Amino acid sequence: MTETSYWHPFAQMSAVKNDTVTIVRGEGRTVWDAEGNSYLDSLAGLWYCNVGLGRTEIADVARQQAIDLAAFQTFDVFTTPNTELFASRIADYLPFPDGKIFFSAGGGSEAVDTAAKLARLYWSVVEQPSKKMIISRTRAYHGMNAYGTSLAGLPANLAGLGPMVESVAQVPWNDAEALRTKITELGAENVAAFFCEPIIGAGGVLHPPKGYLPEIEKICRENDVLLVVDEVVSAFGRGGDWFSAGRYGIQPDMITMAKGLTSGYAPLGAVAIAPRVSEVFWKDGSTAMFRHGYTYSGHAMATAVGNANLDILEKESLVDRVAEYESVMASHLAPLADHPLVDEVRAGVGLLGAVNIDPKVKEANPAVLAKLVREARKRGVITRNLGDVALQVSPAFTITDEELAKVANTIHESLEVVSRESDFVGP
Amino acid sequence: MTETSYWHPFAQMSAVKNDTVTIVRGEGRTVWDAEGNSYLDSLAGLWYCNVGLGRTEIADVARQQAIDLAAFQTFDVFTTPNTELFASRIADYLPFPDGKIFFSAGGGSEAVDTAAKLARLYWSVVEQPSKKMIISRTRAYHGMNAYGTSLAGLPANLAGLGPMVESVAQVPWNDAEALRTKITELGAENVAAFFCEPIIGAGGVLHPPKGYLPEIEKICRENDVLLVVDEVVSAFGRGGDWFSAGRYGIQPDMITMAKGLTSGYAPLGAVAIAPRVSEVFWKDGSTAMFRHGYTYSGHAMATAVGNANLDILEKESLVDRVAEYESVMASHLAPLADHPLVDEVRAGVGLLGAVNIDPKVKEANPAVLAKLVREARKRGVITRNLGDVALQVSPAFTITDEELAKVANTIHESLEVVSRESDFVGP
Repeated sequence: MTETSYWHPFAQMSAVKNDTVTIVRGEGRTVWDAEGNSYLDSLAGLWYCNVGLGRTEIADVARQQAIDLAAFQTFDVFTTPNTELFASRIADYLPFPDGKIFFSAGGGSEAVDTAAKLARLYWSVVEQPSKKMIISRTRAYHGMNAYGTSLAGLPANLAGLGPMVESVAQVPWNDAEALRTKITELGAENVAAFFCEPIIGAGGVLHPPKGYLPEIEKICRENDVLLVVDEVVSAFGRGGDWFSAGRYGIQPDMITMAKGLTSGYAPLGAVAIAPRVSEVFWKDGSTAMFRHGYTYSGHAMATAVGNANLDILEKESLVDRVAEYESVMASHLAPLADHPLVDEVRAGVGLLGAVNIDPKVKEANPAVLAKLVREARKRGVITRNLGDVALQVSPAFTITDEELAKVANTIHESLEVVSRESDFVGP
Repeated sequence: MTETSYWHPFAQMSAVKNDTVTIVRGEGRTVWDAEGNSYLDSLAGLWYCNVGLGRTEIADVARQQAIDLAAFQTFDVFTTPNTELFASRIADYLPFPDGKIFFSAGGGSEAVDTAAKLARLYWSVVEQPSKKMIISRTRAYHGMNAYGTSLAGLPANLAGLGPMVESVAQVPWNDAEALRTKITELGAENVAAFFCEPIIGAGGVLHPPKGYLPEIEKICRENDVLLVVDEVVSAFGRGGDWFSAGRYGIQPDMITMAKGLTSGYAPLGAVAIAPRVSEVFWKDGSTAMFRHGYTYSGHAMATAVGNANLDILEKESLVDRVAEYESVMASHLAPLADHPLVDEVRAGVGLLGAVNIDPKVKEANPAVLAKLVREARKRGVITRNLGDVALQVSPAFTITDEELAKVANTIHESLEVVSRESDFVGP
């Protein structure tokens, strides 16, 4: 067989080139590989396939839109009906009134680069051009384009890439006072924005400390710093509400989103922009212009798919279902915390959870997470190594009680098998 | 009516919010707006819809794939059949053997950020970490994420954005010796890569000076600098061949692509990577890893659409058709060069052309390009302001002789009308 031509993301290709799993079909929460093995996908893809796989109603919409008008540019004066409709429907769910929606093409990474550029441009337009610094947090993930990579707090993803975007700074993820100190240190007149995930995702499913989000909102207001909330993972129900900013009672100046926006049926991302920022560009007579955008911004088929996905979320009350099932999932995962290999289980806010491996176990057995992922897969459950600290659980919103039990049991079995392995160094 | 919630790319929203054109349907090269007006789209969207609109065969493939498996992550070991097939079919058309394909999600912007990150990482892996500088050209366009924005040579797109990616440098677009001088000045031991479009697109359709591309290839080789060719616009036939690197006889180390890759039926981008770069990651025993990727890298539906688009290009011999029609289009546009408002028509290489407005006319009438675009639209032809210097013509590959005549005639009429306007300052 000829060697594959496909370079997988986040993969050590010297090993993966001889060890691939080809997924050929999916329905609901189950996928099948080319050998006919079935897997319960506990991740919903990469926490995006919130309505589950095989939704014929979305497929039909995609086909019809591709026949009518697959895509047309929305630069300058042009727009399409689904682009408009989807933007207004998103705006209706935002935790602030009169939001404007800027669509990115590929997903969250482009949404983050868009928000970061707009934050700096805003201060330039309102004649405070010294406000350029962007502050982010340790353990943050903001996508993989140059801005997002620069803002991330996961050091491995920056290694070997050389200097990226200038004028970014970082604070500990769980310390509001540290943000205040950093702004003082940099000078508020030099700080454009603070970026944060309301619930940290790829960094390990980390819930905000009690009171943290309202406190950082207050600090941003006091210092005239824009608050940009990255809800690429958490929006559209994943965090148990339409937006987690709403759940935690804060009103950001911008919100980035992707993933659940289309449940992955088509690539799409977006930035919601509150009036404070949008007005200086939109008000009558303004000559300010955001010279930014993507060929596929507002893509006709992708926004049609977005509307079809939103129809399902609404008709099946799936966001309410998450609010109901978040404690069910937490109950299933909680007992895993008693396993000797595990030091903590984080769950209970929305349908995202992490089974954190004891750092001492990880240090003695660097491959422990990879082994656990492999053992679970052998047993028919797909999970993954989250931020090199935990196993991720983030199923489709249609997951059942039985399926959640199967995920928990399979992770337990995998922990047992790995701790019995001959080369394993016990805790 | 409620004000729209949609923030258009590259738009002055204070004006556009009250002046939009809603495109509702398309077929071939024609689109219709919500009022029933029809337009001949001389742009193919934004030089992407190469096979034309309304292709039922692509719509059917999109539907079936969305039912079978809309998307699955291809991180780590996972892959899908269409991801593999499309990667290998792209590799077969590359101007170098054994290319590996890394897919971006949204299109060219992410492909550029991917290539720029990989270029620096490559030098880090081969233990020449000082090679970090990336050189690009004036009038270059490399997408709108932070890396692409930093590498671009269109100053307006950088205004007000503050410091972006560090360690980039720029040389005049048409001077190979300037590249040699810049590398010497920076020190070859500090230079990672040179990025260039074989035919400059958004900067105004600028053909490479004779001998330029082989010369810069030679300079890159002599100085051990990676050559990254941005073919987001030109690949898959737009430049008259599958890849313009092939047409001009050069073998880059990486090629970025998007647009014609799917004809815009789904967002998708890609980077092709030559063995020199890929081998250090892929060879047996290598522990090097490109910790990069997008949620929708290798997206099942987008790559299925890519295969369906490639089927059409192959079955209808559309790349050969471009090679045949490039001179037809050039003949239609050439007479416009005689108009007093025009100083040059650039066409004849592939199906991309520019009608350059005399800079003196532009200086005296800053809105002249916007007016020309509006007049053409009133007469049923969509063109656009290209790099603030020219009108763009880049139709679908199925364009007919009669349609090309209509484009040329309409541009001529628009030039006539605008030059007669009461507030127009003549040349």
